Amino acid sequence: MSKSSASTNGATLWAKTPKANAELFSLTYGSLVTEVVRDADGNVNEINEQLEKIGYSIGIRSVDEFLAKSNAAHCRSLQDTAQVLGKTAFKMFLGIDCDVQILSPTTFSLIMQENPLYLFVELPENYKETLQYAILYCGIIRGALEMLNYKVECTLVKNILKGDDVDEIKVELKQILQDGAGDDYKED
Amino acid sequence: MSKSSASTNGATLWAKTPKANAELFSLTYGSLVTEVVRDADGNVNEINEQLEKIGYSIGIRSVDEFLAKSNAAHCRSLQDTAQVLGKTAFKMFLGIDCDVQILSPTTFSLIMQENPLYLFVELPENYKETLQYAILYCGIIRGALEMLNYKVECTLVKNILKGDDVDEIKVELKQILQDGAGDDYKED
Repeated sequence: MSKSSASTNGATLWAKTPKANAELFSLTYGSLVTEVVRDADGNVNEINEQLEKIGYSIGIRSVDEFLAKSNAAHCRSLQDTAQVLGKTAFKMFLGIDCDVQILSPTTFSLIMQENPLYLFVELPENYKETLQYAILYCGIIRGALEMLNYKVECTLVKNILKGDDVDEIKVELKQILQDGAGDDYKED
Repeated sequence: MSKSSASTNGATLWAKTPKANAELFSLTYGSLVTEVVRDADGNVNEINEQLEKIGYSIGIRSVDEFLAKSNAAHCRSLQDTAQVLGKTAFKMFLGIDCDVQILSPTTFSLIMQENPLYLFVELPENYKETLQYAILYCGIIRGALEMLNYKVECTLVKNILKGDDVDEIKVELKQILQDGAGDDYKED
């Protein structure tokens, strides 16, 4: 799927997807982060890890829904997958346009100018540098791609809440899994 | 504000409000419930109480935003408030139409045919009767109305996940507070 058709598909899917208020979504995620912070007793590594895990299980649960609705069943390469992820899935799930940068045959970046999770959010000083508030997305991507047999590592390399101009998620392919739920997604 | 203008206002606000994917919202709320369940060690009263409290703090934080955007600044009575809550606020925040039933001068019910929180949700048997999954809304209403000087009690009296045909939230006015943040909201 080309970049532009992935993008058109994203806009169409976003138009017809059931929606909730972005502020309520952001406040609900904020409540979730608050719970996780309390559970982790302020240990920021544990907080990030836990938020990533929560994302991972959302990713696992979302991917079937996404494939069913998006008809994006034929990605021939990681580059194709990157376009579908950035241009179709991000648009459909978050309503935002996301830039895709292919960095190498096994690495790409998703770049967001804005992030709906950040509505109303201001981190306290002691968390600003370290808490990866949007690491949820890294988990979602890792979970979703794992269901498609791609084992990846996702890192939030730029972070608006920390003062960067954009959010950037770097996705690095570690392994192509042989078994799994991703059979429909392979080359046709 | 009449019932029909509250409803028109709700539809207009919903059209222009920033949005997120309802499924992602529902999955995120599901993750929050999971955290709370774990923290409460399965004690269902504690779970319900905690979810209500989380809603309460969302309500407190949402009300200014709502008043600024909705221009719903002149509710003359609890009945007016009920219409604005059910027809304008529920539409703006959840995108759903909500029936308002005035039960007495101090009591009303909000009735929802559908609930976006319930997408993908199926409660395990041991929680079906007792866990009030949507009690978040009760907390939100309590928090928001308290900012407007209405001290209310909200109860989820019908619950789709339990097998009822609709969700019904009963709101009962307990006290009109004298001081608070609600000065702008009084009779003009």
